[in-house]
Amino acid sequence: MSIEELARQAKEAAIKLAGADTALKNRALAQIAEELTAAKAEIIRANQEDLKRSQEEDLPEPLMKRLKFDEAKIKDVVDGIKSLIQLEDPIGRTLLSTELDEGLELFKVTCPIGLIGVIFESRPDALVQISTLCLKSGNGVILKGGSEARETNRILAEVITRATGKAGIPAHWLALLDTRSEVIEMLKLDQYIDLVVPRGSNEFVRYIMDQSRIPVMGHADGICHCYVDEDADIEMAVRVVIDSKTQYVAVCNAAETLLVHQKIAPAFLPALREALGDRVELIGCARTGEVIPVVPASEEDWKTEYLDYRLSVRVVAGLDEAIDHINRYGSGHTDSILTRDQRKAARFMEYVDSGNVFWNCSTRFSDGYRYGFGAEVGISTSKIHARGPVGLEGLVIYKYKLIGSGQVASDYSNRVKNFTHKKMNKEFPL
Amino acid sequence: MSIEELARQAKEAAIKLAGADTALKNRALAQIAEELTAAKAEIIRANQEDLKRSQEEDLPEPLMKRLKFDEAKIKDVVDGIKSLIQLEDPIGRTLLSTELDEGLELFKVTCPIGLIGVIFESRPDALVQISTLCLKSGNGVILKGGSEARETNRILAEVITRATGKAGIPAHWLALLDTRSEVIEMLKLDQYIDLVVPRGSNEFVRYIMDQSRIPVMGHADGICHCYVDEDADIEMAVRVVIDSKTQYVAVCNAAETLLVHQKIAPAFLPALREALGDRVELIGCARTGEVIPVVPASEEDWKTEYLDYRLSVRVVAGLDEAIDHINRYGSGHTDSILTRDQRKAARFMEYVDSGNVFWNCSTRFSDGYRYGFGAEVGISTSKIHARGPVGLEGLVIYKYKLIGSGQVASDYSNRVKNFTHKKMNKEFPL
Repeated sequence: MSIEELARQAKEAAIKLAGADTALKNRALAQIAEELTAAKAEIIRANQEDLKRSQEEDLPEPLMKRLKFDEAKIKDVVDGIKSLIQLEDPIGRTLLSTELDEGLELFKVTCPIGLIGVIFESRPDALVQISTLCLKSGNGVILKGGSEARETNRILAEVITRATGKAGIPAHWLALLDTRSEVIEMLKLDQYIDLVVPRGSNEFVRYIMDQSRIPVMGHADGICHCYVDEDADIEMAVRVVIDSKTQYVAVCNAAETLLVHQKIAPAFLPALREALGDRVELIGCARTGEVIPVVPASEEDWKTEYLDYRLSVRVVAGLDEAIDHINRYGSGHTDSILTRDQRKAARFMEYVDSGNVFWNCSTRFSDGYRYGFGAEVGISTSKIHARGPVGLEGLVIYKYKLIGSGQVASDYSNRVKNFTHKKMNKEFPL
Repeated sequence: MSIEELARQAKEAAIKLAGADTALKNRALAQIAEELTAAKAEIIRANQEDLKRSQEEDLPEPLMKRLKFDEAKIKDVVDGIKSLIQLEDPIGRTLLSTELDEGLELFKVTCPIGLIGVIFESRPDALVQISTLCLKSGNGVILKGGSEARETNRILAEVITRATGKAGIPAHWLALLDTRSEVIEMLKLDQYIDLVVPRGSNEFVRYIMDQSRIPVMGHADGICHCYVDEDADIEMAVRVVIDSKTQYVAVCNAAETLLVHQKIAPAFLPALREALGDRVELIGCARTGEVIPVVPASEEDWKTEYLDYRLSVRVVAGLDEAIDHINRYGSGHTDSILTRDQRKAARFMEYVDSGNVFWNCSTRFSDGYRYGFGAEVGISTSKIHARGPVGLEGLVIYKYKLIGSGQVASDYSNRVKNFTHKKMNKEFPL
């Protein structure tokens, strides 16, 4: 089947799925949980094939770790599905109701977006998470996972498709692509696909953002900053900067650049250097180099997401220079100020143009689980629709539904009738 | 100055404007209203220049009418600004507050999107409306109006810039482009411009949607449908269809296609034909042609936005065929079902994938003013961010603001500390 035909079918199914009620969707989620548990042995066998092949192909160790899908991981995703069942259905909520005139009532009601394309890398648990999030929010989904996980992904998609079919979810609501060229095909199908969520390497995400007409929700870069103000508590600042940089270097919310107020630099930088030991390579501006030994930084360093034990460091004249630096070089992801001064914190949080702005805590907190959202679609650095860690609500939009009794616009133009525009507090009744 | 430099300046100003409080923004709006009134003579003089030149260039009559900006129109826009001042500030509202742990509090707070590019045609009042909407929502704006209105637009932009400068709004928050080639330049500047709102001819909107990486909010086509079900009240259906088609043919929410249930076609179509007289040309499928005389319709007609006294007509087997037709050929704008059967209405409103779905009333009601939104940014057929008539809230997004006291993520990974994830009901305190 062509990718276009597959997308057309999935879109048709998505439109039907939009009308599924909460009970049906939750029943289907429970069925998935049950069948994943029942198919445990089969899934682990498929994953072992992937692991074996990937080892022969010398897949790097961190990716091998993410690829592994064992009994414990299966239990995790099943637990995740059980939590998802407990979450409120985001669809069919009346956001606004207005009487336009007697017998002419307007309702703004949440509905699914439609058909979502999701591209993710090694971790097979992402397939389960994303597809169940789409199901709960009534969206169809086309998935493409990392090729290293192809056998695992295939069996997971099969199990999910079978379980939802049994539960009565429209067939074809989920499709799995095999190759990257199929993804390229998919990115052209803006008549069927309403949103693309790329989770993966920056390079590929940026390619998608550049190439497709379909709106994209996600982030290419995570160039996160810590700014240590002159009024910072040095001991706290050292602890927060180290956590922001080193707690997990390979992730988008790890700090890549440290900005330091010139007045505190002579005291703070040596303390940081000592606490870091030789775990982190420091790449610094000339003024940093006057205080501690650093590799000289180039313009390029301020724009680089190292995803490694490296940190670029710049001494700044004050808060406004820090804000300007972040708005110029940052990626709108997560930035934190360390200061005792509440007014400076307020200014930083107001003027730093990022989805997540923090005061006196680690950049690593910007995450759907840590924010208490439970299920997470991803982290978005867009300026519209959804920003920061995105939960189920990122997969939801709304429709206006207007119920009349034969009203025509000309009566209101001719002032035969007049709008009342009364706020109601009424659920959509149909 | 290059367009890039102009956009860079406007973005800088927009970031400052994001911090403006409600009182300052409302003061600036009042100043604009005052200075527009004071500059009345000057504005009318500039507009007369535009009118004279456009007449010499044989601008079509409807466009001449839209171009005209006289004392009454000035009063209208000034009244609009006064209403806008009364609207609640959409910025700085706390949407969510969660205690992640003791002393670690998360707030989701509304903020402006940033810098908006707006492209509009003949009507100079659009310049005033759009720029004051952007001001109220704390966004910078780059405007491009129709070249036929260039003198009027220039003086309006000058007055607004002067008034907001006096009130203390950051300079450069508003910029006016002169030529279409400058717009093409602007569409490349996705590092500065966060959203493009095109209001104008379909062709140009589609060009923008295709060419720019910047997210677009608007609509290219308005292919709206009326579906007359077998259970419709014929008299009501005739009235609603005629209003949907003829009340104002040149607008996006006018009906372009009529779908008729086969069982009601023999009674309904002749009644419609008679009521329409020869005001509207009917272009119909073969089955329509069996009942009333029509111009034969081609596949192309179902995809065409006539914006004229023409209506394509198709007889369908039933509700589901009507829904399929709309989802296939429609533009996701506005579609209305005429029926007495509540279950069919519910099904239509659930499964028609459009921003506005109506029961027993004219498609012409889908409009920000008629919906009671007051100020309107435009009508969107997007599937994300904002859909249908878009008020101020379409220019707003949010940030996550996290206030800590030195917390680091490693303490939570190591289970030294645990998240509490308590819902608070607290405004952001800074």
